[in-house]
Amino acid sequence: MKSYRKELWFDVPKRRDYINITPMVDECLRESRINEGLCLVNAMHITASVYINDNEQGLLQDYDDWLEGLAPHEPVSHYRHNRTGEDNGDAHLKRQIMGREVVVAVSEGKLDFGPWEQIFYGEFDGQRRKRVLVKIIGE
Amino acid sequence: MKSYRKELWFDVPKRRDYINITPMVDECLRESRINEGLCLVNAMHITASVYINDNEQGLLQDYDDWLEGLAPHEPVSHYRHNRTGEDNGDAHLKRQIMGREVVVAVSEGKLDFGPWEQIFYGEFDGQRRKRVLVKIIGE
Amino acid sequence: MKSYRKELWFDVPKRRDYINITPMVDECLRESRINEGLCLVNAMHITASVYINDNEQGLLQDYDDWLEGLAPHEPVSHYRHNRTGEDNGDAHLKRQIMGREVVVAVSEGKLDFGPWEQIFYGEFDGQRRKRVLVKIIGE
Repeated sequence: MKSYRKELWFDVPKRRDYINITPMVDECLRESRINEGLCLVNAMHITASVYINDNEQGLLQDYDDWLEGLAPHEPVSHYRHNRTGEDNGDAHLKRQIMGREVVVAVSEGKLDFGPWEQIFYGEFDGQRRKRVLVKIIGE
Repeated sequence: MKSYRKELWFDVPKRRDYINITPMVDECLRESRINEGLCLVNAMHITASVYINDNEQGLLQDYDDWLEGLAPHEPVSHYRHNRTGEDNGDAHLKRQIMGREVVVAVSEGKLDFGPWEQIFYGEFDGQRRKRVLVKIIGE
Repeated sequence: MKSYRKELWFDVPKRRDYINITPMVDECLRESRINEGLCLVNAMHITASVYINDNEQGLLQDYDDWLEGLAPHEPVSHYRHNRTGEDNGDAHLKRQIMGREVVVAVSEGKLDFGPWEQIFYGEFDGQRRKRVLVKIIGE
């Protein structure tokens, strides 16, 4: 069994944004020289998500509006978590909707995707350096 | 390490439905001859889910009502994504709540489940052919 | 390839609670003697979650309030599932928001975590004995 590990770093200028990281994960898979296995991609921070969906700008704005409706940023005093001095209580909730991680099959040396699947980094508390972990195991 | 891959195809007559695919995944596991490992089951389409919960008809209707409350299908003009000519903006949101994939332990040649765990395909934009990927790795 | 399996048992006195199980999973990983691989941790019951987020008491209360807003326990007659004699329809919905499972990378014999990642057992229908499965594969 082979294993591969890499951290991808992000410093998103906005509080929230949605970044297509598929090309970066593809590059990791090439580096790994793994042909058959599983590829885990997870946010290493608890106010961010890694998820798979469509790379369509209208949809990314729909997600943002929807998440802001389900877990609004303001009033920041609404969240007990923010009594610690943070203002990111909402980000911990938004991240649960979108998820921490994806596991992608690796088949014949490729990410084994359906026609529209793309891997996104969802940032809900940006303007700081944060990481995504790519771990691939297989042969 | 052994690996196994199979696509399961669905053409759901309704826009939304919830289909117990546990017997199909069980059959995949038998075919794979893998005794210890991990089994990934994921929707290959971005308006569908694979999730694990109870095979109880009332609950399936509860899920449907609840998802429709959290991300209503209409008005379709509510979603920017639908300006592309689609009417499935809501389906991309519902799928995030229910999730893309499950990873199930394989132990002693079986799906290593608790008493009520069943794998479901959740369709949120049906009436077309769509796929689920089963990928199993182990020994 | 090595594989390891263990069940963790819980009997939560309250209906809902959020328990940091990271030390228990760390102990499993030590027992497994696996250095590189993947660690699956999943609820074996369908009214409970395993998720990764912050071990901060205010946040745990925020999660509880938020989940109760998205899928209220009462009126129990609101859920068709409860016509079976159960009163846990809400718990099946809350669990979908928080998720069934996490997959954690194992690197150099450790759970490969970012700075604040902790694994939680989220109970939404407690006062009974329930299980979490830890399955680790690798070398």
